[in-house]
Amino acid sequence: MASKHIINLKNMNPAVLQAEYAVRGAMVIRAKQIKEEIQAGSKKYPFKDLTECNIGNPQAFGQQPFSFHRQVLSVLMNPSLLHTKVYHDDVYKRAELYLNSIEHGLGAYSDSQGFPIVRKNIARYIEQRDGFPSNPDNIYTTDGASSGINIALELLLSGPNDGVMIPIPQYPLYTALLALKNANPVPYFLNEEKGWSVDTELLQQVYDENTKKGINIKALVVINPGNPTGQVLSESDMKKIVEFASKNRIVILADEVYQLNVYTKNKKFTSFKKICASMPNHPVDLFSFHSTSKGIMGECGIRGGYFEIFNIDKDVHFQLEKLRTMFLCSNTTGQILTDLMVNPPNPEENSPEVLEQYNREYQNNYNSLVYRAKLVTDSLRKMKNVICNEVEGAMYAFPRIHLPEKAIEEAQRRNQAPDLFYTMSGKLNI
Amino acid sequence: MASKHIINLKNMNPAVLQAEYAVRGAMVIRAKQIKEEIQAGSKKYPFKDLTECNIGNPQAFGQQPFSFHRQVLSVLMNPSLLHTKVYHDDVYKRAELYLNSIEHGLGAYSDSQGFPIVRKNIARYIEQRDGFPSNPDNIYTTDGASSGINIALELLLSGPNDGVMIPIPQYPLYTALLALKNANPVPYFLNEEKGWSVDTELLQQVYDENTKKGINIKALVVINPGNPTGQVLSESDMKKIVEFASKNRIVILADEVYQLNVYTKNKKFTSFKKICASMPNHPVDLFSFHSTSKGIMGECGIRGGYFEIFNIDKDVHFQLEKLRTMFLCSNTTGQILTDLMVNPPNPEENSPEVLEQYNREYQNNYNSLVYRAKLVTDSLRKMKNVICNEVEGAMYAFPRIHLPEKAIEEAQRRNQAPDLFYTMSGKLNI
Repeated sequence: MASKHIINLKNMNPAVLQAEYAVRGAMVIRAKQIKEEIQAGSKKYPFKDLTECNIGNPQAFGQQPFSFHRQVLSVLMNPSLLHTKVYHDDVYKRAELYLNSIEHGLGAYSDSQGFPIVRKNIARYIEQRDGFPSNPDNIYTTDGASSGINIALELLLSGPNDGVMIPIPQYPLYTALLALKNANPVPYFLNEEKGWSVDTELLQQVYDENTKKGINIKALVVINPGNPTGQVLSESDMKKIVEFASKNRIVILADEVYQLNVYTKNKKFTSFKKICASMPNHPVDLFSFHSTSKGIMGECGIRGGYFEIFNIDKDVHFQLEKLRTMFLCSNTTGQILTDLMVNPPNPEENSPEVLEQYNREYQNNYNSLVYRAKLVTDSLRKMKNVICNEVEGAMYAFPRIHLPEKAIEEAQRRNQAPDLFYTMSGKLNI
Repeated sequence: MASKHIINLKNMNPAVLQAEYAVRGAMVIRAKQIKEEIQAGSKKYPFKDLTECNIGNPQAFGQQPFSFHRQVLSVLMNPSLLHTKVYHDDVYKRAELYLNSIEHGLGAYSDSQGFPIVRKNIARYIEQRDGFPSNPDNIYTTDGASSGINIALELLLSGPNDGVMIPIPQYPLYTALLALKNANPVPYFLNEEKGWSVDTELLQQVYDENTKKGINIKALVVINPGNPTGQVLSESDMKKIVEFASKNRIVILADEVYQLNVYTKNKKFTSFKKICASMPNHPVDLFSFHSTSKGIMGECGIRGGYFEIFNIDKDVHFQLEKLRTMFLCSNTTGQILTDLMVNPPNPEENSPEVLEQYNREYQNNYNSLVYRAKLVTDSLRKMKNVICNEVEGAMYAFPRIHLPEKAIEEAQRRNQAPDLFYTMSGKLNI
């Protein structure tokens, strides 16, 4: 007899079956279980509380949003607040600026690329950051960075021979999206001994080996600062990456959502846009992604972000625009928050008290991130059989755990990867 | 010499090239041109103003959002408003209810399926609407309906032999998404003479013809009320559609974003969920989509919505959950707005003045939609060589234009579809 269900694992899209997304996979389910057991009074774990660090979600850990940003957004959400006196005048001034510019408020669709005012301010931010021109026509607002990365891969990838070079360790979105698009992840390993830097020599070797196998490598993903490895790339490595991509004619996808999250005084963030623009003799097509979810504001839930394209052929740009329009527009609240991120209170427009409040809140959040980055690394380093690089940036530490032979054997017996076996055990000591 | 650009029309994803998205295509560009000419003083067009009706975007035409909804959202955006007295107490009460339930506010990621409180209220709304149980675990919040439709198609479609039956005339998102996913649109024509109803006899014929050609038909899209045809399906036709889908074992994708937009007293909206639940002997897998963008609130820019699954195998459901997690969560503002849509002010919880305001605003928006539906139809019917069915629901009229032979010949000479030729001309009379 036929099942009463029509779709099953055999007739659904097999690419979905293949896609793994570890950020919310088996480990997260196990964590939830342990959390519930602890809440129900269980004492069998060597810890009293469980903190979910599987995903960068700062406000879930008490990080506070910026008052000015949220006040402005509340006025846009309900413009009748303009006639009250609950906020500082600067808030109303900024809100009116947006309302006058976006015409129909937050409730109407924006241009599918995003509100013109927002794209203009993003371009200005990029120019000030990099010292190279940026054109608002090359900016697309997105719902977080993920939706932008998805659009870029959709534009590029067309079949089972296509491949994209991704760093390992990586943010699992990349392998998941590549699986969905039937394309090949082509891993290049980051060098843990050298602080998770990119082995630029290795790139060509990986490229050649995989090209020889018949994989048509179309793009290279760089995550800087690194997720989940926390490193900040040096300009000299970035130049070598651009030379490599230009020479082999592959697109660079620069995931730069942690561009403000640099915690060490010895390093600073440089954008790929800046490096590419400074190397006209090594032309390369670039997509660079940013988001409101990370940085110092950590507004994950609002889903704001943008990407900038650089050196993209104009016919391809037209196709990208068309692709973007299919999903109408990114959410308007996220667009305005993106504007506030790139265009926060500043001495030219704002009174000292508003500026002081913003700077204080910024510094508090930043200091807390620095503190926690160090706390995590120090705690991991105190553990037996664990080593961990310094967290220079982003929001993650990526420790190496040396498991004893017996644990590895037990994991193999259970047909589990040894690290998964350790994690699922709920034990701390190794 | 190699171009300095790496991606071009030949090496990009050809599926993107193939996808057409008429809502913002050549006609929209032409309209913008005409608008600019009129603004610059041109008198060459037989009209003084140009109104963009290419997309349902009510607030761009002056429709006002609901005060209560926006007030509550403004408090969620900035909870310090709780300590002011700018709003009615009911607003604070509702805002506190959300804030207590969602724990970390709008700035943290929610569960990837959506906030539990929102899914619970959606399920309750569905139960009250249909009289059949609805489980919050079967609800997924989305950024507008489009992103939900995309997820459903991603789950189902896996290759160039797969096909999806779509109504013609259709909302162009469907053909665009099918092109992107390399799948075949299998058109079934709506019956204009019978008020754009579904020819249920025709469905089997279309199915058989296309199956014979080797197309593996996996799903059937029904848009009810119709976009862009404005009809409301009868229950008896819906039952025949369910019988057809169940018999041929294809999934129903019910696009029900206009479920509140019914303007005739002779018809009422019935959900496919209700019909499917009432026909246990004709089991069929169902996805039904709803959105905050249409209805009587028309909050397009906020990007809220949800879909409910029905009769989905539990292993498939797990895969769907995994797929959803890849994009983290739908924007939290849209989630709360979805809750407000399904759970507006009501006599049990709200004071008479808040209720009265909501009801008045609702009735105003509704009446205006009814008025405009009639205005558009009446105006079209006054034109020579134009016929148009009554707009029973949704936000669109779909007229038939009889072009003179000479115009058709001229269009053919220019290698244009005759209707496109007429539209691009900027003329009114035919």
